[in-house]
Amino acid sequence: MTAGGYFISFEGIDGSGKSTQARLLADHLRGTGRDVVLTREPGGSPGAEEIRALVLEGDGDRWSPETELLLFTAARRDHLERTIAPALEAGQIVICDRFADSTRLYQGLARADLRRLVDQLHSLMIGREPDLTILIDMDPATGLGRALARGSGEDRFESFGDSMQQKIRQGFLDLAQEFSARFVTVDGNRQLDAVAADIRQIAESWLP
Amino acid sequence: MTAGGYFISFEGIDGSGKSTQARLLADHLRGTGRDVVLTREPGGSPGAEEIRALVLEGDGDRWSPETELLLFTAARRDHLERTIAPALEAGQIVICDRFADSTRLYQGLARADLRRLVDQLHSLMIGREPDLTILIDMDPATGLGRALARGSGEDRFESFGDSMQQKIRQGFLDLAQEFSARFVTVDGNRQLDAVAADIRQIAESWLP
Repeated sequence: MTAGGYFISFEGIDGSGKSTQARLLADHLRGTGRDVVLTREPGGSPGAEEIRALVLEGDGDRWSPETELLLFTAARRDHLERTIAPALEAGQIVICDRFADSTRLYQGLARADLRRLVDQLHSLMIGREPDLTILIDMDPATGLGRALARGSGEDRFESFGDSMQQKIRQGFLDLAQEFSARFVTVDGNRQLDAVAADIRQIAESWLP
Repeated sequence: MTAGGYFISFEGIDGSGKSTQARLLADHLRGTGRDVVLTREPGGSPGAEEIRALVLEGDGDRWSPETELLLFTAARRDHLERTIAPALEAGQIVICDRFADSTRLYQGLARADLRRLVDQLHSLMIGREPDLTILIDMDPATGLGRALARGSGEDRFESFGDSMQQKIRQGFLDLAQEFSARFVTVDGNRQLDAVAADIRQIAESWLP
């Protein structure tokens, strides 16, 4: 189903520069003549964007962790079917700002026993991982400062404090070990250009 | 978690009188001094009603069967957590117009391999069946005529034709066999009062 295409995801704490770096990599690859689809989660297709709005708006306790997980999985299924899979089938490179690893991490941190449920639901309803996941690792204090300065306000996960950001950073590093075959970790505590250059090099060496 | 309470669901083809009979039973039981919560699916809690709107509005191919199944399951989880389980814990009788059996049937008819997915997802994320399910069985031609006369327009399943209604009727009868310990089938091809009297008797004999 994905012959010819290549699926790259970006992960990292809020403020790590994921979205910017995903866009820079897309621009670079387009500049080399490649056909790139740049997308994001939650969202990435019209239906998934509507589900995203339902999940992220309102109070933090509006949905239980389990209901939230089901809604995120519904959004991911729609995104996969309507945006990612067709692009991969057409031989395009898909670059996605967050994918299932973010769910593993954030829901798993919300309650210890949820991580297992995330994996079971993923196997049952999604069953696809990225070919390459670029983790931008950085000092949480820097990341949190950037996220607050940006003040997007939509993502209520950004209201987590510093100790939670530290747990999230460690959680991503643990995922990079668990899925070491597809994860590459980049040091995000540097100038944007230096990080972007590293990511270009990684992507070029991984792409067929 | 459900000590003291009792969970009754109504199932049947569109136009079978499920909703009317659920209300009549609720009125009757309240009249005997019992504490009753009357609810429905999809919906039944504020969050689930929002998800219901997202699923039922728009074109029939807006969501794939799998995404639709995830959305229905998210709505059911919210409904169970916020409405059904608290009522049962408080010792109330919950009467629900449709529950998981409708999903087993409609999604399973949409594509043969979905029935297994419905069951797996139900075990993983819901895990609760009604104590008693009242199936109102009736001639599909009569049911379809009633549904069209009502002209609610919201439920796009009602746009199914007569042969589909026949399959749905048979599907419910098959479910009644599969879950015979909790299903009771009532002949709905009669006057409303006669059907209601049967249902009152069934409920009274099943209730603790």
